[in-house]
Amino acid sequence: MGHAVATEENGRDMQGTVLYGPGDIRFERRDDPEILNPTDAIIRLPATCICGSDLWPYRGLQPIKEPTPMGHEYCGFVEEVGSAVKSVKPGQFVVGSFATSDNTCPHCRYGYQSSCVQREFMLRAQAPFLRVPLADGTLVATPDGAPGDGLVPSLLACSDVLGTGWFAADAANVKPGATVVIVGDGAVGLLGVLSARQMGAERIIAMSRHAARQKLAREFGATDIVTERGDEGVARINEMTKGVGADSVLECVGTQESMMQAIQAARPGGSVSYVGVPHGVELKGQQLFYTHVHLHGGPAPVRRYLPQLIDLVINGKINPGKVFDLVLPLDRVAEGYKAMDERRAIKTLLRVN
Amino acid sequence: MGHAVATEENGRDMQGTVLYGPGDIRFERRDDPEILNPTDAIIRLPATCICGSDLWPYRGLQPIKEPTPMGHEYCGFVEEVGSAVKSVKPGQFVVGSFATSDNTCPHCRYGYQSSCVQREFMLRAQAPFLRVPLADGTLVATPDGAPGDGLVPSLLACSDVLGTGWFAADAANVKPGATVVIVGDGAVGLLGVLSARQMGAERIIAMSRHAARQKLAREFGATDIVTERGDEGVARINEMTKGVGADSVLECVGTQESMMQAIQAARPGGSVSYVGVPHGVELKGQQLFYTHVHLHGGPAPVRRYLPQLIDLVINGKINPGKVFDLVLPLDRVAEGYKAMDERRAIKTLLRVN
Repeated sequence: MGHAVATEENGRDMQGTVLYGPGDIRFERRDDPEILNPTDAIIRLPATCICGSDLWPYRGLQPIKEPTPMGHEYCGFVEEVGSAVKSVKPGQFVVGSFATSDNTCPHCRYGYQSSCVQREFMLRAQAPFLRVPLADGTLVATPDGAPGDGLVPSLLACSDVLGTGWFAADAANVKPGATVVIVGDGAVGLLGVLSARQMGAERIIAMSRHAARQKLAREFGATDIVTERGDEGVARINEMTKGVGADSVLECVGTQESMMQAIQAARPGGSVSYVGVPHGVELKGQQLFYTHVHLHGGPAPVRRYLPQLIDLVINGKINPGKVFDLVLPLDRVAEGYKAMDERRAIKTLLRVN
Repeated sequence: MGHAVATEENGRDMQGTVLYGPGDIRFERRDDPEILNPTDAIIRLPATCICGSDLWPYRGLQPIKEPTPMGHEYCGFVEEVGSAVKSVKPGQFVVGSFATSDNTCPHCRYGYQSSCVQREFMLRAQAPFLRVPLADGTLVATPDGAPGDGLVPSLLACSDVLGTGWFAADAANVKPGATVVIVGDGAVGLLGVLSARQMGAERIIAMSRHAARQKLAREFGATDIVTERGDEGVARINEMTKGVGADSVLECVGTQESMMQAIQAARPGGSVSYVGVPHGVELKGQQLFYTHVHLHGGPAPVRRYLPQLIDLVINGKINPGKVFDLVLPLDRVAEGYKAMDERRAIKTLLRVN
């Protein structure tokens, strides 16, 4: 196993990112990842990143019980595989989903790999090396060998933020010619704009009051920007759609206000997707009933879309890596969290080495 | 206007059904229906019926402020039309939806006529004559003239109970070969069974613990009956589907328990429809998120389906009128409510004369 470097002789002495409590991110010595099951792979990450969802525990809004290793977005070079792994091999460049999947169970076969019966939610990816369980069902190798460094940010984006934005558009039933509203101008919402564009939406309305994010939304394909929120935002969408409402609404935040804004912006019979873990959201059945919307969401089944998304990136059709507007070396990960928490950065890329 | 009989000479002296308070149904003299707007029609009903949803106010679970005329399911002979009505004419036999629609507004054109911008929810149909607003957009005439008396119950069913069961199956995305669960063994649920069968479902699991309803469910196409409810019911569905869950679940009750039972019986990526007005239902966003279900419901856009349903009835392909297991003369309407309230009758047909 020429590629396996996790030997006693050349231990990685790996450092990784750990959240100790609200605002307390540390980069510290951690155990080197090892093959624990024959279906595992170890990959070496050229870069990693911070997710908007990492901010929930960082802000204390989703309490943690103990120091928690962070990071669930990843791509990189296969270093070592377990004895049962057949579809990827050392040296390949792979992208995986934030949720592992065997890709063979009934839920996976229906395209809901993020509800795989063997699902684990990834952690520990804000580090130079990562153990990926269920490697055969979770990882997708890039065609034609290793991609150029310039593609790494966009391939990394496929792992979650683009895959989730893409699912948001798909789950909101975006069709050619559609009028689409995106609630939330975080990285997922911005890539929801890109996804809606790729799916042929005609009118793409991004709700944002932040200049840099508005600019990126336009670059990704937004045709309109709405700065109003809540009831005012709904009224504005209603006015822009001549009282009808939008065909598709992507809810990319996860709060009660954003969810109600999304539901009320859709036309009767329209579709609302929600892809951020809802925090404190409660839907009144009778209110939902009379809106006549289709509602679909959940953890994005990124694995379903990975081959297509990798292909779009490799062929230069999309450049989702543009969402990274702050680049730091991995050991300065704490600064990356702070910048995102303060909304100074949309999304932070962390370079390894 | 040879068919117009609402003249001063032959006033109808009409009696109709009025709810005064919980359990207090009266059949009493009411104003004769008249053309109020040029888009109205007056129809004469050979029969009418009581809806499961009428039991909410009858039981005091949906309080009323004043004596309320009841009834929203109807079919019958056109007696008179307003000057603007073009698509139906006196003498024709017509079926309408419980929700009026112009059938031309954007929501109607998308197939959501029950969210028509001019929608009114019908009342006053438990009577011999009825004013129907927006006649052109609301009513559909039977082909080839008046149907035989034997078809009246099934045509009456199209107006709401079948149309709603059909929407439940459609909104739950029932496809050929699907495994379908129906929560609720009321008339809508039973006709949801019939609808799922017509749409080609392979396995149709009716949840019921009532012998007469189980029997009718089987006649309508149920392949399995589950008597357990709540968590036990969910566990049973899980077991029957080898741990996967159902492709489509029709929620035809409208309570918190039935809604959660429906959501939990679906597989990840499966579809749940809900067609009874939810009473006291609250959905927790985070719980819904991880189920990965598609959720769609609302007041059934019966008008969308009426031509197809009338055709199926006229051609003898379906016999939804079988849900009427109690037939009473209209002036004994109070007995009909009581029998349904006590679950002695599934659904009561009220004969006029």
